[in-house]
Amino acid sequence: MKVGEVRNAGGRASEALRSLICIDHLLGVGAVIVIHHTDCGLTHLRNDFLHSSLTQKAPENTAEIAKMDFLEILDLKASVVEDMKILKDSPYLRKDLKVYGYVYDIKTGKLQDVKE
Amino acid sequence: MKVGEVRNAGGRASEALRSLICIDHLLGVGAVIVIHHTDCGLTHLRNDFLHSSLTQKAPENTAEIAKMDFLEILDLKASVVEDMKILKDSPYLRKDLKVYGYVYDIKTGKLQDVKE
Repeated sequence: MKVGEVRNAGGRASEALRSLICIDHLLGVGAVIVIHHTDCGLTHLRNDFLHSSLTQKAPENTAEIAKMDFLEILDLKASVVEDMKILKDSPYLRKDLKVYGYVYDIKTGKLQDVKE
Repeated sequence: MKVGEVRNAGGRASEALRSLICIDHLLGVGAVIVIHHTDCGLTHLRNDFLHSSLTQKAPENTAEIAKMDFLEILDLKASVVEDMKILKDSPYLRKDLKVYGYVYDIKTGKLQDVKE
């Protein structure tokens, strides 16, 4: 079994979709495992804060910045469920794609199964 | 030194930008290393092919699909240079960000330094 890995801040599916489509066309993707972890940086960041920080850096791009979604995480189980749904509902991935979701506890090392 | 990793198909900077902005606000990013590798799947995929394949899957989304950029790679050194430039020119990352680029040869295991 070949295992590929896509890693991004928060482990968010919407940002991984392009990569998954590419990998699917190259190798065929049978299953995707979404893993978000406790104390993830994205649980400590808010779009509002980032919009404000970037606007200070590049005030000429205020309109562009306002549209940016940094995919903040308010609730870890909810973010895993949301991402599983994005992958299952995507018309660009195969209909029989298996999608599994877990929250990884960085203190105990345990994976908590998340069901949709 | 803390080292973070962002992984996506092709190792492309434009897709990693959101993650890098988040990581920068959480931990501070002093340097980014862009690594693309020989025989990378993105050197074997073309936007035209993916547009056509996805349009067959989801003909109702033809307009959306036509706008998708899968960040195909025609030349490995050129793609590293392009991505280094995206990171250096980004108004959203710090101005003194150090950016290094390499092509990783999967046959020899050697990293080839790429200069802008």
